Amino acid sequence: MKPQSEEPIAMTFELKATLTCSGSLAAKVDRAVIEDFVRHCNTDVLKKGAPPGCGAAIIWWEVAAENFALEIRSDRYVRAHDALLRAKKEFGTVVGKYRIGIRGLEIQDYRITLDWDAEEGLKLVKLPFVKELKHEGGRLELLLALDEAALENRIPDRLIRLLEDKREAFRWRGKTEHWELLFESAKKPLRFDKDPTEEMLQHGWLEHAAGRGQYIYGPQVTRIFRTFEQILQAELLTPLSYAEMIFPKLVTWDVWKRSGHAKGIYPEAYYVCTPKTRDPEYWEEVIDYFKVTNEVPVAQIMEKIENVGGMCYAQCPPFWPFLQGKTLPDEILPIRVFDRSGPSFRYESGGIHGIERLDEFHRVEIVWIGTKQQVIEHAELLVANYRHIFEEILDLQWREAWVTPWFMAQEGRAGLAELREVGTRDYEALLPYSGKWLEFQNVSVNGDKYPKGFNVKLQSGAELWSGCSGVGLERWAAVFLAQKGLDSDLWPNTFRELVGALPAVFKFL
Amino acid sequence: MKPQSEEPIAMTFELKATLTCSGSLAAKVDRAVIEDFVRHCNTDVLKKGAPPGCGAAIIWWEVAAENFALEIRSDRYVRAHDALLRAKKEFGTVVGKYRIGIRGLEIQDYRITLDWDAEEGLKLVKLPFVKELKHEGGRLELLLALDEAALENRIPDRLIRLLEDKREAFRWRGKTEHWELLFESAKKPLRFDKDPTEEMLQHGWLEHAAGRGQYIYGPQVTRIFRTFEQILQAELLTPLSYAEMIFPKLVTWDVWKRSGHAKGIYPEAYYVCTPKTRDPEYWEEVIDYFKVTNEVPVAQIMEKIENVGGMCYAQCPPFWPFLQGKTLPDEILPIRVFDRSGPSFRYESGGIHGIERLDEFHRVEIVWIGTKQQVIEHAELLVANYRHIFEEILDLQWREAWVTPWFMAQEGRAGLAELREVGTRDYEALLPYSGKWLEFQNVSVNGDKYPKGFNVKLQSGAELWSGCSGVGLERWAAVFLAQKGLDSDLWPNTFRELVGALPAVFKFL
Repeated sequence: MKPQSEEPIAMTFELKATLTCSGSLAAKVDRAVIEDFVRHCNTDVLKKGAPPGCGAAIIWWEVAAENFALEIRSDRYVRAHDALLRAKKEFGTVVGKYRIGIRGLEIQDYRITLDWDAEEGLKLVKLPFVKELKHEGGRLELLLALDEAALENRIPDRLIRLLEDKREAFRWRGKTEHWELLFESAKKPLRFDKDPTEEMLQHGWLEHAAGRGQYIYGPQVTRIFRTFEQILQAELLTPLSYAEMIFPKLVTWDVWKRSGHAKGIYPEAYYVCTPKTRDPEYWEEVIDYFKVTNEVPVAQIMEKIENVGGMCYAQCPPFWPFLQGKTLPDEILPIRVFDRSGPSFRYESGGIHGIERLDEFHRVEIVWIGTKQQVIEHAELLVANYRHIFEEILDLQWREAWVTPWFMAQEGRAGLAELREVGTRDYEALLPYSGKWLEFQNVSVNGDKYPKGFNVKLQSGAELWSGCSGVGLERWAAVFLAQKGLDSDLWPNTFRELVGALPAVFKFL
Repeated sequence: MKPQSEEPIAMTFELKATLTCSGSLAAKVDRAVIEDFVRHCNTDVLKKGAPPGCGAAIIWWEVAAENFALEIRSDRYVRAHDALLRAKKEFGTVVGKYRIGIRGLEIQDYRITLDWDAEEGLKLVKLPFVKELKHEGGRLELLLALDEAALENRIPDRLIRLLEDKREAFRWRGKTEHWELLFESAKKPLRFDKDPTEEMLQHGWLEHAAGRGQYIYGPQVTRIFRTFEQILQAELLTPLSYAEMIFPKLVTWDVWKRSGHAKGIYPEAYYVCTPKTRDPEYWEEVIDYFKVTNEVPVAQIMEKIENVGGMCYAQCPPFWPFLQGKTLPDEILPIRVFDRSGPSFRYESGGIHGIERLDEFHRVEIVWIGTKQQVIEHAELLVANYRHIFEEILDLQWREAWVTPWFMAQEGRAGLAELREVGTRDYEALLPYSGKWLEFQNVSVNGDKYPKGFNVKLQSGAELWSGCSGVGLERWAAVFLAQKGLDSDLWPNTFRELVGALPAVFKFL
């Protein structure tokens, strides 16, 4: 899934470091031995794996007491930081013969220079581990601050990949995401032209909750949601042999690291923090402050809690630890499970929205897992059953499109007409009150993304794939009620019969 | 619900303040006029409402240019800060005759001294708005830092109430909470003596999720949970005419302020924070850091988010904004609604627990609202239906007890044998593997607590009451499986038939 830059960026790496040893090199090791070591590095050790004429070289060195200082220069092949680790290992063997060990490695300077002239509009202000950044004459110069642990974690390589990502994302910027019509229903009689959220608020079917983008659903809307679920159960989950599970709704960072969401979820996440301790004394000043002022001291609270993850965003990632690290027998495939055990959260843009765009919303999440062929074929079954529901039961004016999947969109990639097997189908329906089409559901074939991320294998060794499909209850309601209105007498027969009489519990003066 | 101290604490208030005026008092107002004002205050204005011989007095004053400095001393009746506001108002009338207005009020010193000798074990280290705190010879001396806004918000009164609360809580400390047996079932044949969580983990019915106190429930356990819900629906919710609603699961502070949870929820809350902005540039450094290190920079994230509340803790508070500020016609009572739309969260103590003590758990929450009589009577109906379920369908060894309600326990009060109408019934069942009894459900009559907190009124003017009952699915399962085991052949007939064949979806190698 990682985007590959098509043209490699030209780059130079220059590194100054010092190896500190357990004994005096100057006193115990002949200068000629070190000269031999450097020659061997420059002809052999630091060239291995690089095309002829490429690789790294030690271009300067000096011995003083127990220190060996050196300067390495390289191209993109054996990058200077890799070269340094190779050289360190080799140096260890050489001085080991004199009963000297290497005690420390310090990096004084690390400068990376890249060709960077094509990216005029792409501003780089700050980069992790970069203490100085210069962009002049089509060259980008980075001065890095690194220790040995950072080298071992391959920070410089990841930094370069980050730059490539940014270049890639920048080039896709402005291009619209891929969207290709797969199916469009007939035009349906539209009996209603109002915003259903406004209407429902007026009828007391729902109320704004205290939070942003959050509603409290009264008995009537809840009945409609539960009828949607009942239809989904009868027309799709039962015929396709799905079993219900309960997926957690707090998602720790570990899960989002594996699912890939940790790459970009931040502006839209609802973050969850836990107390640093449950000790009542630790919290006494917060409680006292509240009791005296009737205000919650949120700034003080922020000092006393720590972030562990966020609330459910996409619904299936927290399922995957159920399978994490396991090997599955082929005969249990395709696995078919769903979850409807709680809400999802997204920090949406501000302003007034109805139930079509919420911070807290409810979804049935459908997950299937199998071989590549099984997963692709099963997606077609879902598509057929959904089509039946939207055509025969809900009688919607709707369409189906092939779009950029989220994990591509997140990385700023958009085109992807080339993707035919891995990808997302979006379901959209017309909102007569605005004339816009609203995405109300999807079916996604995610390839091996999740099995790989969570290290799930198949006994036969065949590639394990998965798919997921989210049924947004608020979105279904937004679409259905926008087209059909709130008067149940005007609803399609089958649906009206399934809903029954809407419960009237509340009346206000 | 506020605990009242039985013996009032003796206290003295001494306050030094300066009123700054718009013109020179020294130049324009006769000293005799001010003398008159002070005499009038000391005989009349600052005594009003206090028992004879009590109240406040101006014990020193001085005029310099446009400033009127004064010192007020009082007992617990007209407290010095109230006296100051009274005096300020009166002074405004007096100097108004000279076309002089009051421009500002500054408090130089405010000292409160209280009898505090009985509380040897109660340590006071830090109190809000208190810059100095001395405890000597049975007297507690507080030096306050206040501005006029703090006076108007009655901070000193709330501070004294806080001290009374702390004294009250301290006196209750060590006393066990009230617990009184109401009903106990017959002894039942116990067929199992293992910890069901351990057994379920071994059978692959559930898996530890990535978070603390969190599980992923496989198809078998989920089927058991849904069967519990089905029983609840058929035996209690339908016969008692309950309608389903969807309550929000993110709870903002505003809701917890009104429900009373803001008084003490802090050590156990799961806190929710939102991004300070959705601007992608604002989050770029976090994304870059993750991409380069594969670590999520949680400390950096803490700087970029703000706390808005927490995840569902008690399940009914976020329902109440549905009714907030409204007046209900009597004829719709009793209102009966329930919610099962998502999990609740509690930061539980660490260590190893099974599904009987979780950080993330699932509950059906039942809420009823009516007149006092309706609410009390309806609780009896619930009690009867629950008894039927536990006796006839689940065949549990269980008991029912009258206990201290949470909002009393939170304030450190415990006794409460005197409470007969407002209060909580706990349901407990025996866990054969540990020999302990586990609380697995409650029925609470909450009096007017919620209608008052959320300002909900009844057309007739009668007192509006409410009750709630939480059905913990994990707790039901913990109790049922601990007594009956995992082998469905050994389960009571009715339950076994309702569950049907447990779905076997997964197998691992």
